Amino acid sequence: MKQSSLYHRSLLFLSLITLGCYSANAQEKTTFLNAQESDPIKMGWMVGSPPPANRILRFEDGSFFQFPGMRWSVAHMREFMPTVNVSRGLGNSVLLQKNLLKDIDAVTFTPLGESKPMTWEESLQKTYADGVVIMHKGKIVYEKYMGALQEDGQHAAMSVTKSFTGTLGAMLVAEGLIDPAQNVAHYIPELKNSAFGDATVRQVLDMTTSLNFSEDYTNPNAEIWKFSAAGNPLPKPKDYTGPKSYYEYLPTVTKKGKHGEAFGYKTVNSDVLGWIIARVTKKHINEVLSERIWKKLGTEQDAYYSVDATGTPFAGGGLNFGLSDMARFGQLILDNGYANGQQILPKAAIDDIKKGGDKKAFEKAGYTLLKGWSYRDMWWITNNEHGAFCARGVHGQVIYVDPKAEMVIVRFASNPIAANGANDPFSLPAYHAIAKFLLAKK
Amino acid sequence: MKQSSLYHRSLLFLSLITLGCYSANAQEKTTFLNAQESDPIKMGWMVGSPPPANRILRFEDGSFFQFPGMRWSVAHMREFMPTVNVSRGLGNSVLLQKNLLKDIDAVTFTPLGESKPMTWEESLQKTYADGVVIMHKGKIVYEKYMGALQEDGQHAAMSVTKSFTGTLGAMLVAEGLIDPAQNVAHYIPELKNSAFGDATVRQVLDMTTSLNFSEDYTNPNAEIWKFSAAGNPLPKPKDYTGPKSYYEYLPTVTKKGKHGEAFGYKTVNSDVLGWIIARVTKKHINEVLSERIWKKLGTEQDAYYSVDATGTPFAGGGLNFGLSDMARFGQLILDNGYANGQQILPKAAIDDIKKGGDKKAFEKAGYTLLKGWSYRDMWWITNNEHGAFCARGVHGQVIYVDPKAEMVIVRFASNPIAANGANDPFSLPAYHAIAKFLLAKK
Repeated sequence: MKQSSLYHRSLLFLSLITLGCYSANAQEKTTFLNAQESDPIKMGWMVGSPPPANRILRFEDGSFFQFPGMRWSVAHMREFMPTVNVSRGLGNSVLLQKNLLKDIDAVTFTPLGESKPMTWEESLQKTYADGVVIMHKGKIVYEKYMGALQEDGQHAAMSVTKSFTGTLGAMLVAEGLIDPAQNVAHYIPELKNSAFGDATVRQVLDMTTSLNFSEDYTNPNAEIWKFSAAGNPLPKPKDYTGPKSYYEYLPTVTKKGKHGEAFGYKTVNSDVLGWIIARVTKKHINEVLSERIWKKLGTEQDAYYSVDATGTPFAGGGLNFGLSDMARFGQLILDNGYANGQQILPKAAIDDIKKGGDKKAFEKAGYTLLKGWSYRDMWWITNNEHGAFCARGVHGQVIYVDPKAEMVIVRFASNPIAANGANDPFSLPAYHAIAKFLLAKK
Repeated sequence: MKQSSLYHRSLLFLSLITLGCYSANAQEKTTFLNAQESDPIKMGWMVGSPPPANRILRFEDGSFFQFPGMRWSVAHMREFMPTVNVSRGLGNSVLLQKNLLKDIDAVTFTPLGESKPMTWEESLQKTYADGVVIMHKGKIVYEKYMGALQEDGQHAAMSVTKSFTGTLGAMLVAEGLIDPAQNVAHYIPELKNSAFGDATVRQVLDMTTSLNFSEDYTNPNAEIWKFSAAGNPLPKPKDYTGPKSYYEYLPTVTKKGKHGEAFGYKTVNSDVLGWIIARVTKKHINEVLSERIWKKLGTEQDAYYSVDATGTPFAGGGLNFGLSDMARFGQLILDNGYANGQQILPKAAIDDIKKGGDKKAFEKAGYTLLKGWSYRDMWWITNNEHGAFCARGVHGQVIYVDPKAEMVIVRFASNPIAANGANDPFSLPAYHAIAKFLLAKK
């Protein structure tokens, strides 16, 4: 295989991370091994000295992100690529209290588009869950580690990363460090002549920018490939002439129509926001996340970002962390930014997220399973009867916050299908059923 | 630059890690910026979004390991390459007690080969120290963070890694899992036809194997380059036909003379020992270190290893950890394997290290600054009046254990000169002076 082909294979995961939340077209018809059959521990990936040839996963040829090996890799991302820590500091972690409810597994719901009910427990298999925690009233009521995820391991958060970037953005807005009405070029002059130049920070936060940026990875000319090539930490092929980092790529994005009219889920918005955050704080986003949230939250483990060849963290999809720390973060959002006796995030930032985005703009994006939703500060707002909102990443990563039920569900997963449309029918009604179950508990 | 040249530049750090402990020839005459002038924080490496072009360090072109940028990189290794965690688990760390002694900075000693005395404080500048902790009777009596090292950061341990591999080896010997009298081929049949096939495990542990393995990196045909190429995590250049991992490389090492007669400091011995450890425990060495030591030691942070393209940790030089955890490990060795109320390492393993190796075999290696020393279980034994012994890594990494003075000195450093010969004149007499100072304290 040619060097440049190898290089492009290794990009696959970067493009998958950035895939849109739901695309009906992405509903692949391939038959995959089910969750038990593809259990990454039973399959013995990377076990042995050396592992058998057919159990070695590599970055350079993209094998590490091909199903079913991908089920192992999502819990071992930094073994394949350079990464930068989000330090938790050195203090003790704050243990989450537990009040485990055994009957959660038996809670039933009807998957979207189906008529036969399914139990919560069955849904975990269906969605290839690697780990799930349900918090209710601040306590863990359900906890399960599956797949290749260990309690002291970290899992790829994929596009859940975007909601972290958005939360930091909303935080800096609430603090007055970022003015959402300003144009992006005000903060990042390098973006003046790009599509982002005359977009407002608010449009970036809510992804209502209008960009020539296709995330259709079946099209070899799609911009997502150029973006991924720029961000790939491997040395560029010698015939490569494009941008060599995220910061070199973003100024090349061009405009398509008018900003502010329609929701368009494009990863580059998160990277532009990450850039603004880095510029105004004069720190890399991993340091900002560490200092402002991770060190204060009582987390158990450092988190980490993948980085490009110049060390820039991938603010659009590169974050990894432990399951219980994901639960801590979800609980922080549910509790309006308050945890461990301090207001870690300004309440105004959480209020701004909960307020939701422009429903009409969202509708134009055509998510058939997400009727009535909106998008705000890089969070997905369900606008359901419980006021639930969520962070969502490909292959099934989620932080689902239900204020009315005082519930947070966090899940890591490794569904062979990237698009959330594969998991949503077995997830969204399941979350709501658990919420109602918990509300009825009293 | 050609792809393959880029690839070879990126190997430089791997070969530097593996450099011998001291070589008179390696005393380069180049003039370098001194420690203050090369302060990596003042120089502003990798600061900015993006950093200025002349402040960006990259893996692919080797710039990350060129002085003075290297002073930043040693505290940020995983931002340049894939790595695997050594988990500390999720429990609370065990804080080290402090009894800081202010007068240590003023302790004087006479550098080897000089007549004018120097203070301890001055020696830290001279050796480009990035962090130093001195333990006395189990308490921190001196602690300093310099360079780019943060309290919640990790620093490259370079060949100090070997002493960790050796300690695990001695542990498994004490437990009877490894028989040091057995030939290596007994455990690793793949090595039967290599130089290691008829070497005993003891000869590997004490590096008295006789190998065709030059670590002279000024010679482009030296075996160290082939070893580094095999272990480089980057995709191999398309004209590359050699071994593609550590485990593929090691069987190619050929014999040179007779084993057991002379000490020969060759990194591949540590990688062979790492392989044996992995084979008998059926785990990767990062897991062995985690389960048997790191999780029990009350460490504050996860450690990590660099890995090759197939995920094998670099047992000869790839370990990174925090300064206080390095002190915990040194104290564990001083305390004969006992810490936190439990016998973590068998006392017999520490006894075996302290017993020292064959002085005559050591003498043949010709280390002019290390007269009377020996090498055992991948530790350097001074055989001085205090029975001191140490772990040593290029650019100035050290764990110095002085049983008589009940003292441990740990140091991370980034001396522009790799070989320990550059630091030894300002280090070895300094350690002994501190030991005598502490002994006199009572």
